Amino acid sequence: MSKKKVVVALGHEALGSTIQAQLGAVKNTARALADLAEADFQLTITHSNGPQVSMIHKAMTELRRIYIDYTPAPMCVCSAMSQGYVGYDIQNSLKSELLSRGISTPVSTILTQVTVDPYDEAFYEPKKAIGRYMSKEDADIEVNKGNYVIQTSEGYRRIVAAPKPIDIVEIDAIKTLADAGQIVIACGGGGIPVIEQKHILKGASAVIEKDSIAGKLAADLKADELLILTSVDYVYLNYGKENEEPITAMNIAKAKEYIAEGHFGETDMLPKILAAITYLEAVPSGRVIITSLNKTQYAIDEKIGTIITS
Amino acid sequence: MSKKKVVVALGHEALGSTIQAQLGAVKNTARALADLAEADFQLTITHSNGPQVSMIHKAMTELRRIYIDYTPAPMCVCSAMSQGYVGYDIQNSLKSELLSRGISTPVSTILTQVTVDPYDEAFYEPKKAIGRYMSKEDADIEVNKGNYVIQTSEGYRRIVAAPKPIDIVEIDAIKTLADAGQIVIACGGGGIPVIEQKHILKGASAVIEKDSIAGKLAADLKADELLILTSVDYVYLNYGKENEEPITAMNIAKAKEYIAEGHFGETDMLPKILAAITYLEAVPSGRVIITSLNKTQYAIDEKIGTIITS
Repeated sequence: MSKKKVVVALGHEALGSTIQAQLGAVKNTARALADLAEADFQLTITHSNGPQVSMIHKAMTELRRIYIDYTPAPMCVCSAMSQGYVGYDIQNSLKSELLSRGISTPVSTILTQVTVDPYDEAFYEPKKAIGRYMSKEDADIEVNKGNYVIQTSEGYRRIVAAPKPIDIVEIDAIKTLADAGQIVIACGGGGIPVIEQKHILKGASAVIEKDSIAGKLAADLKADELLILTSVDYVYLNYGKENEEPITAMNIAKAKEYIAEGHFGETDMLPKILAAITYLEAVPSGRVIITSLNKTQYAIDEKIGTIITS
Repeated sequence: MSKKKVVVALGHEALGSTIQAQLGAVKNTARALADLAEADFQLTITHSNGPQVSMIHKAMTELRRIYIDYTPAPMCVCSAMSQGYVGYDIQNSLKSELLSRGISTPVSTILTQVTVDPYDEAFYEPKKAIGRYMSKEDADIEVNKGNYVIQTSEGYRRIVAAPKPIDIVEIDAIKTLADAGQIVIACGGGGIPVIEQKHILKGASAVIEKDSIAGKLAADLKADELLILTSVDYVYLNYGKENEEPITAMNIAKAKEYIAEGHFGETDMLPKILAAITYLEAVPSGRVIITSLNKTQYAIDEKIGTIITS
């Protein structure tokens, strides 16, 4: 009997922002994931990497300023490093948690590249801020290198494009491990963005949204379920307002209606709902649950969370 | 018909020392690896990470000096980042090279932890230099943190232990992909060293020799062949001397004899011969070839290289 396949998307609250915070946060995350493994689900886990890739980008930039023999690390390399860093912390703490429960399911991380379209409109209007705040002088240097910079109240920041994912390059490896019932961490930070030019996969100066890739991953794996773990127990109508109301269940049509009515925040809830739709349109028999990381146990029994079906 | 399983160990010459150099070097390496894939071998690839992990360690240390809100990154985290960085560059260039030859074999990198013994004698006498040269002042700070430092003619350097590998934590995932005939990159930089304390896998301040893990990996996979690619065409007797002589073939007994006679350099050739012995003692039907990265094609046909059998 094959296990029920669940794709789990982890957000910021699963990891924290610093090396020390992450070490603590992943222990808590590991318990939530181990609960799912113990319920005999096969898990494919993806995660965000905002603070992590920013930290690495900062570090590599500072290195370049001090040692001129180092060339700057492109975003794709920083993204790959962040997959190594976060993947290690998750697989390490999850393996430890499973061992302590007497569960021997293998856990591993697959470094993942994801192709993006060089003509994606996101490249014409980059929006995603990365790295440290810069002085005007440093900002000018970035602009001269052909990079985009925006001015904020706290200084200048480099911005990069967040194009839509097209193909998960390492999907065969991910499928093989998932089909074997193993736990896989993949597409970390949305995946390392690459552009396919003839036969060459060229690293792109971009980032891919984590939620966006989670929907694609669940669709490609024909997962039974997509579990999006975040900081709220439910998706809400009129979130943060007096008439705020949790949504316990909705279908694609209803979700699209709510989107049109502007219920979901553009940078937090909307990408999750869009990921749910991507997945459910590919796998109509599937089920999406959006809830808090700390309520995972209750979500299994449908006692909490917003359930989305086709 | 299952493919012949070959573990390939890549050294410094396969990667170079900087981001720019590595980008060029991996293209050449990819051609050598693609030749092997085209000869219908299943490849499990491991690689060194000396300059890469040093670069990352430097960068993370500088970051800490500039932004005090960052804690220093432990060696295990730097090692994980280096697996992300190097694994990405290899899988990217190899996938590109395979696509250009019309070969669709999946390629991926598995982040790998390797357990080491906390009582390994290497921890009592660390020998492996890492990171940048330091001033006396910075060296004192390291010593006060409990780290080991040595004084060299060019300044002070931190040294860490290089313990022997015990178990490859993610071996099941590696085996699953290898058994499926896929190309796997694993145990990069010798693996992320961890110490098993009860059920917890605790990151260790250490590095594992790449050759050492290559022997263990080939043994665990029951590989048909272990191919150690380096900068010389053969293993030599009296290397660098007037009476230097290439070894075309030897068995374990002969290899041990030569070791006792001191023919092999302690930091370069000896670890490779010891890895060969580890593997052949576990898989007596196996075969080890040690030759140049650029002679891989000839090595397949046994036209070059030192062949070691049990």
